[in-house]
Amino acid sequence: MKTTSVSRRRFVQSAAGAATGVVLFPALACSTGTPSAPADNSNLVGPLPGYSPQIGTLVSMMHWMRGVVLSSVQSLGQSQLDHLFDPQANIIGAMLLHLAATEAFYQATTFDGRNGYNAQEQKRWGAVMGLGPAGRHAIKGQDLPYYLATLQEVREKTLTELRRRDDAWLAAVDPAFFGNQPTNNYCKWFHVVEHESNHNGQIKWLKSRLPGAKPAEE
Amino acid sequence: MKTTSVSRRRFVQSAAGAATGVVLFPALACSTGTPSAPADNSNLVGPLPGYSPQIGTLVSMMHWMRGVVLSSVQSLGQSQLDHLFDPQANIIGAMLLHLAATEAFYQATTFDGRNGYNAQEQKRWGAVMGLGPAGRHAIKGQDLPYYLATLQEVREKTLTELRRRDDAWLAAVDPAFFGNQPTNNYCKWFHVVEHESNHNGQIKWLKSRLPGAKPAEE
Repeated sequence: MKTTSVSRRRFVQSAAGAATGVVLFPALACSTGTPSAPADNSNLVGPLPGYSPQIGTLVSMMHWMRGVVLSSVQSLGQSQLDHLFDPQANIIGAMLLHLAATEAFYQATTFDGRNGYNAQEQKRWGAVMGLGPAGRHAIKGQDLPYYLATLQEVREKTLTELRRRDDAWLAAVDPAFFGNQPTNNYCKWFHVVEHESNHNGQIKWLKSRLPGAKPAEE
Repeated sequence: MKTTSVSRRRFVQSAAGAATGVVLFPALACSTGTPSAPADNSNLVGPLPGYSPQIGTLVSMMHWMRGVVLSSVQSLGQSQLDHLFDPQANIIGAMLLHLAATEAFYQATTFDGRNGYNAQEQKRWGAVMGLGPAGRHAIKGQDLPYYLATLQEVREKTLTELRRRDDAWLAAVDPAFFGNQPTNNYCKWFHVVEHESNHNGQIKWLKSRLPGAKPAEE
């Protein structure tokens, strides 16, 4: 690949929800826009109106990352979302629900101080949180709008809760979380974001091996 | 999977380089530590000594993410790093070099204003930047220390350059980058970070399918 094509290869669709105005760091201003406008601001990581500065910066990353995932799956039909590559694999649909389940878990631990689902959440998310055999059989036969609506529903709750909090909350430390070490809320939510990329890498890998797919070097 | 095991499942090894002191958002203080100390601070996303506040926050994410990647590959030998899953796949070793190549590209675009490698960089990184056939044949027969040293070398340059810059630089906008849209340096470097997770997802997927590997539900 020629290096000049890098910026095209990394093309990122505007994330749903990232179309609202962005206020960059205080020293800078920028225009607002919509995804269909000549310029949008989904590639501007920084504070966002309605959120404290650091939380807004995190949210801008959440928007951007979600846009990348959505661009990977936007063309997939039900049979592709249900396709099982090998007996050990997860279907792409399960991975999308797993992203929502993960976000719901981090809502519980950071917003409610629970390091686990309550009974209702366990019923809804338990199978896909673990992926593997349980998640593999929990869902099939759904098309893309089902997955997108679920992701959006969970994300809306996250954003609503984040709007109510401030940068001190984002920096607050859970004394023992990842690796039983002190972990702040920013780290937990950063993990939620990068975790989408982790599975997006797998989704793209599987997508390029779907029946009839054009091979891709991912 | 039981939800109570989530924090264990997300165990993150301390990243090399993340052992230096962390200063959280101004309202909070925290202890410093080393990876072997009872408490470390690699799970604290926030400002770091020696960097401007927003750049330090980004660097704390870079450290954390790199630690996750290193924990995925730390047990791999040469034959595993060289293993090709199918004719379309990339070997894990190539993906590790691809992470370094990507970081070198973003050094060029954000530190030097070049949207491509110079001749010397092209010679070193061109094949693995593109992955695929060129990258597949460019390297083999290397063991893990080779890859880790390359990653570390590139990372050191990044950190040296970031120490010289400030938050206004991080917010500075390239008028046309991802999707030909305005893109700030924070977004470009956030991409470098999440891109490691993207390939880490693929590395874990391939690792669980190495000859003799214990299957994992990733």
